[in-house]
Amino acid sequence: MNILVINAGSSSVKFQLYDMREETVIAAGKVERIGMDSAIVTYEPAGKPEVHAVEEILEHTTAIRKVLDLLVHPAHGVLKSSSEIEAVGHRVVHGGESFASSVLVDEEVKREIKRLFELAPLHNPAHMQGILAVEANMPDVPQAVVFDTAFHQTMPPVAYLYPIPSVLYKRHKIRRYGFHGTSHAYVSERAAALLGRPLEELKLITCHIGNGASCAAIVSGRSVDTSMGMTPLEGLMMGTRSGDIDPAIVPFAMGKEDLTLSEVNSMLNKHSGLLAISRLGSDMREIQQAMADGDANAKLAFDMYEYRLRKYIGAYAAAMNGLDAIVFTAGVGENSAPLREAVCRNLSFLGVELDETVNAQRSSAERLITTPASRVQVLVIPTNEELVIARDTYQLILNRRSVI
Amino acid sequence: MNILVINAGSSSVKFQLYDMREETVIAAGKVERIGMDSAIVTYEPAGKPEVHAVEEILEHTTAIRKVLDLLVHPAHGVLKSSSEIEAVGHRVVHGGESFASSVLVDEEVKREIKRLFELAPLHNPAHMQGILAVEANMPDVPQAVVFDTAFHQTMPPVAYLYPIPSVLYKRHKIRRYGFHGTSHAYVSERAAALLGRPLEELKLITCHIGNGASCAAIVSGRSVDTSMGMTPLEGLMMGTRSGDIDPAIVPFAMGKEDLTLSEVNSMLNKHSGLLAISRLGSDMREIQQAMADGDANAKLAFDMYEYRLRKYIGAYAAAMNGLDAIVFTAGVGENSAPLREAVCRNLSFLGVELDETVNAQRSSAERLITTPASRVQVLVIPTNEELVIARDTYQLILNRRSVI
Repeated sequence: MNILVINAGSSSVKFQLYDMREETVIAAGKVERIGMDSAIVTYEPAGKPEVHAVEEILEHTTAIRKVLDLLVHPAHGVLKSSSEIEAVGHRVVHGGESFASSVLVDEEVKREIKRLFELAPLHNPAHMQGILAVEANMPDVPQAVVFDTAFHQTMPPVAYLYPIPSVLYKRHKIRRYGFHGTSHAYVSERAAALLGRPLEELKLITCHIGNGASCAAIVSGRSVDTSMGMTPLEGLMMGTRSGDIDPAIVPFAMGKEDLTLSEVNSMLNKHSGLLAISRLGSDMREIQQAMADGDANAKLAFDMYEYRLRKYIGAYAAAMNGLDAIVFTAGVGENSAPLREAVCRNLSFLGVELDETVNAQRSSAERLITTPASRVQVLVIPTNEELVIARDTYQLILNRRSVI
Repeated sequence: MNILVINAGSSSVKFQLYDMREETVIAAGKVERIGMDSAIVTYEPAGKPEVHAVEEILEHTTAIRKVLDLLVHPAHGVLKSSSEIEAVGHRVVHGGESFASSVLVDEEVKREIKRLFELAPLHNPAHMQGILAVEANMPDVPQAVVFDTAFHQTMPPVAYLYPIPSVLYKRHKIRRYGFHGTSHAYVSERAAALLGRPLEELKLITCHIGNGASCAAIVSGRSVDTSMGMTPLEGLMMGTRSGDIDPAIVPFAMGKEDLTLSEVNSMLNKHSGLLAISRLGSDMREIQQAMADGDANAKLAFDMYEYRLRKYIGAYAAAMNGLDAIVFTAGVGENSAPLREAVCRNLSFLGVELDETVNAQRSSAERLITTPASRVQVLVIPTNEELVIARDTYQLILNRRSVI
């Protein structure tokens, strides 16, 4: 069975086509700059040369049509017909309180995703365009939606409520949702497999550290707390996002600098984090290079980033009253040996004992980076959200068949 | 030598008169509702009956005159003449980056406190009124100022900077200052004395849990991090303050509820915290009583309050890579055995082992509440900010004399 995984943004569509027999990716690619006069198409069929194209693609339906054309192209294609795609799985950022797991798309699901537009105005409308674009091109193919928030719906009220007037929760659904759930779920399962222990017995802290970054506290495979909140702004310092700050800074800065609501949001989401402190950029590789070259701002940015991450690990150890393992994943988590090293060196009080050689290895393999004597294990596990989306979609299709 | 300690608020003046030979309080009291037509005067001279009065006191100079009159009153007084007051020490909330310790008041100090009005608009102007009122009544008596922020000026940039555009720090001094410094300093010194160990060797987490609440991470007697930030809103959940929330909630709620900057500040500072969740009040005693009576909202408020405090303790243990002792102080910290019990029960992973009997004792004495086997000690230490103000003032006077 072939499953097409779609991650639709406001001006892009990323895709991966999975053959679920072996869970192999048989084609992947993206369409970028949708709506501009020269969209960029990148297509990578397994075992065949990459295809690049620049053409006019003004909206998502045309973008999906282009993807399907490539997948069945006589020269570049990997399928004879698009009817070989049995289902499509979409990443959807915000599932609110309505979705604690992945679901097949129907009219009610679409209505609910639309109701959630106001909680994720930058993401959910784009995902909806993706869903409608697939529907327009392949009206008979079932679609599933996999939510970034779903995994965190197991959080207890003590973790998901904010200590603010309850009318804000009732009227506007202001609470902690958390994001990156698909990734936190995936790496927590892989961690249990690597440790050779049942997930049910483990207290884990998973650190998804990419351009966006969040930690989760996971007890027995269930998320009990996570650092992102109502929005993906809260929590860790990120590439361009501040993470936690004194909430009183928001009205203070608005008053002093005469900022609108949208401007203060933009400041905290796009002009803060590593970028603001390093004054160089938001990319950890660039920061590390500049640090190595003696740049003091880059060093400060790295140190703040590490310090704030480490404090969350301590906080979640206290939240769970202990911990068995820490998992690093996503771009920075998988690739920044210096970050992992700095975090672990300062967690020796928890019994963390890093194997510096294994930590420093350049590798894309899942691995344990602590010594045999370490009381808390630390793992590097490359995330694979697309695989989870493909698996969830596949499972929903199988379940539906067994019901029918 | 007698030192008068003053804590001037916008409509109140609290005072304690210390005889520094034995550090005894020889009179204490307060004037409340200054500026309203019936101010309330409470006066407690040591060894004599309390005095209560209601009279018209329209501003701070009259209030200080009233205090001085009582102190030398033929029947109620404790002094023959106000000339027996050798110096006055004031609590000042915000010392910004200008004051890392207590100082004697001169024209430059007054100018600097005024420059800090915009960082503490509710507090510093009232303190200045107190200073000027003392000056008007006792022009020749030296005055000292003791800042809530001063103790935290040892924080490194990694802890005091926010990951936001640096222009906000340069133009508006937006950074973490921290508060309750006088209390954190006092109890950390007392903790070392009680533990019989040099402060220089200790990693401490001090929890000042009153109506306002903050934690501090203290290494070798120096504050390295604290939970309150640019303002006293950040950090722990408090009586009526939210503490940490997703900063994006501020513009979101402003937009949804059409709130002004002042209204959103008021919501987060005065209508949040225990009050918002319990829907009963902001007083921990009331919350605990309601919990005992089976009130679910009170239980949730208590649990959130405890959970958020515990996460800070874990975070600061990670910040310091270990910890020797936790100190509870201030109204709730000193008196809520259930809070301390819940925190400690869930910190067994750090080696905390509570002595439940000692913890449950109603006592105003300094005490250790962990068992001899506990790897991390937990102490209850009543705070005494007035004594620190008296001592600092006394010391500054002695230093000045030795210079002259």
